[in-house]
Amino acid sequence: MKISSILKNMSNRLNLGITCDMHVHLRDGAMCELVTPTVREGGISVAYVMPNLQPPITSLDRVVKYKETLQKLAPKTTFLMSFYLSKELSPELIHEAASKGAIRGVKCYPAGVTTNSSAGVDPNDFTSFYPIFKAMEENGLVLNLHGEKPSVSKGSEDIHVLNAEESFLPALRKLHHDFPSLKIILEHCTTEAAIKTVNELNNNVQTPQDIKVAATITAHHLYLTIDDWAGNPINFCKPVAKLPSDKRALLEAATSGKPWFFFGSDSAPHPIGNKARHIGVCAGVYTQSLALSYVAQIFEQQDALDNLSKFVSEHALQFYEVHKDNLQSLDEAVIFKSEQIVPEAISNGKDISVAPFMAGQKLDWSVEWQCK
Amino acid sequence: MKISSILKNMSNRLNLGITCDMHVHLRDGAMCELVTPTVREGGISVAYVMPNLQPPITSLDRVVKYKETLQKLAPKTTFLMSFYLSKELSPELIHEAASKGAIRGVKCYPAGVTTNSSAGVDPNDFTSFYPIFKAMEENGLVLNLHGEKPSVSKGSEDIHVLNAEESFLPALRKLHHDFPSLKIILEHCTTEAAIKTVNELNNNVQTPQDIKVAATITAHHLYLTIDDWAGNPINFCKPVAKLPSDKRALLEAATSGKPWFFFGSDSAPHPIGNKARHIGVCAGVYTQSLALSYVAQIFEQQDALDNLSKFVSEHALQFYEVHKDNLQSLDEAVIFKSEQIVPEAISNGKDISVAPFMAGQKLDWSVEWQCK
Repeated sequence: MKISSILKNMSNRLNLGITCDMHVHLRDGAMCELVTPTVREGGISVAYVMPNLQPPITSLDRVVKYKETLQKLAPKTTFLMSFYLSKELSPELIHEAASKGAIRGVKCYPAGVTTNSSAGVDPNDFTSFYPIFKAMEENGLVLNLHGEKPSVSKGSEDIHVLNAEESFLPALRKLHHDFPSLKIILEHCTTEAAIKTVNELNNNVQTPQDIKVAATITAHHLYLTIDDWAGNPINFCKPVAKLPSDKRALLEAATSGKPWFFFGSDSAPHPIGNKARHIGVCAGVYTQSLALSYVAQIFEQQDALDNLSKFVSEHALQFYEVHKDNLQSLDEAVIFKSEQIVPEAISNGKDISVAPFMAGQKLDWSVEWQCK
Repeated sequence: MKISSILKNMSNRLNLGITCDMHVHLRDGAMCELVTPTVREGGISVAYVMPNLQPPITSLDRVVKYKETLQKLAPKTTFLMSFYLSKELSPELIHEAASKGAIRGVKCYPAGVTTNSSAGVDPNDFTSFYPIFKAMEENGLVLNLHGEKPSVSKGSEDIHVLNAEESFLPALRKLHHDFPSLKIILEHCTTEAAIKTVNELNNNVQTPQDIKVAATITAHHLYLTIDDWAGNPINFCKPVAKLPSDKRALLEAATSGKPWFFFGSDSAPHPIGNKARHIGVCAGVYTQSLALSYVAQIFEQQDALDNLSKFVSEHALQFYEVHKDNLQSLDEAVIFKSEQIVPEAISNGKDISVAPFMAGQKLDWSVEWQCK
């Protein structure tokens, strides 16, 4: 009997265990104070934190301090930290940071493709970072790829927001070929082509331990297509949501139960004034405060609640090898059927206001914690 | 010797004759008062006026009054008027409006694809309008098509903002097949596929009088691709700007000198507050006040100033059979090399402000009138 059927006969509650969001932007300053507590409010226990502050996080000192800041704001949330791939990193630093447990991975931004990526790298030539990747491989660290090539208009070599991810896939294949033991994640994947590639790279996987290439999928990309951000900057993010066929592939992958797909919200808060403007809208969709509710709703629509805990918990815990000893809390997230209206804004009551995804719309699921 | 070469040796002046913009939105009320005079400021003598007011213009009385309003605001501009295709039209009304010279064509909006199109038609079934088209054909009126199918997500039948125009092309072919003498314009075309189709439908054209299917091209679509409206609602319009390959096809068509391509700005003003918002951004790019300067700049970049008067004057005058006797003015527009910065806003100094295309950027060409 499927969980979804059982739910109908029970109390409409579903325990999802130690929930994970493996791609969150928590910013710094007042925005950090506002959004960091919303990780837990959104039903997430373990959060993998992006390093694209200004300046980017590339030192042991800063990553340790950043984690301390976050931990104070949200004592029961487990934060896994990352470095920003740049020339400021060295293999020695990677070894040191890994041995001290200060980071769990390194995030790679192609230069110029999204918020605070100007210090990023040239995806056409990763070889200068191979000593870093080797050190990461040796330490079991995860390489998190923002998998897009920067836009360029040159006839047959056109790269634009629609094919930027697909154009990146050969670079993903090459990295996996050159570092077959390095754990790599194609973050916030958005295309049918990416799903096919990640599936193909896992063709010979026998056990979860064999998985070296995974992909995260956001909540909003399970809802949106290009028509939804055309005229609605609240839904504009990088990578942009693609075509209906791509969305179907993402839905299929997220609900498939395949262990190389798991949840990474890419929740990316911006002050509403940076979204509601006619030029220079910031890329990013904010989903943190209702993360599990968004995902539960779409899984229910797909009649796939049975696989929800795999997507938002088990697969990520496996891939990142998260041990219970390292968790801040053993509390488990429970979703239950209870309607709520997404607020028009999440605000600190002073100077910062963020418009959440689906502002003003109805969600069917709410979250509570089963405390241990 | 090319005009562009001659210009370099002369006074950098180019007389473009009786200039035409065959697709303008002049709205009503205060916005109409603000933008109607900018037709001439932008270097345009003859303007074909869209009927998508609220409610749409579907009666003789309203179209006559609307033209009077416009004429008072801009006495030297020639306004060609149109009806909004809807069930409120009848063949009798078409005959009457044509015989009185009240309209020059009828605009067809598929329901729901753009600003004020909710009263539009179902592009999957034009047959209920065939009596209207027959009356138009008999009177030499022009059918102006907003050539997009409404978005729908149904597997193999997916329609979205990117393929909405290409999906419409079979309907264009069918209309031309069923009404081979009806003059049809595919308005503001944006795709390589549309350009190919319109070229193909003119394969057997021997003289300009043979042309039955034409296409207008906007200024902004000669500049923009999808990357330019992703994150910049000022550039969001319907049809959306497509891929670099599509833009190249538009540039080639506009500068080709082929008589079935001519200028229609689709200048579509919206109060800036309706562009600078995070949800529900209005579709439309405002280019009226600098129309010729935008086009001249891109033609110069393409080394195609020699064909500029064909694109912004001759082809439209031919297709619409505009006779000198019916012009409000015989003044000719002259462009000359003189830098100007596009203003951040066009405003009435009171309650209405519109952000023009390329706000804040530099244009190399200015316009003056050679009065007759």
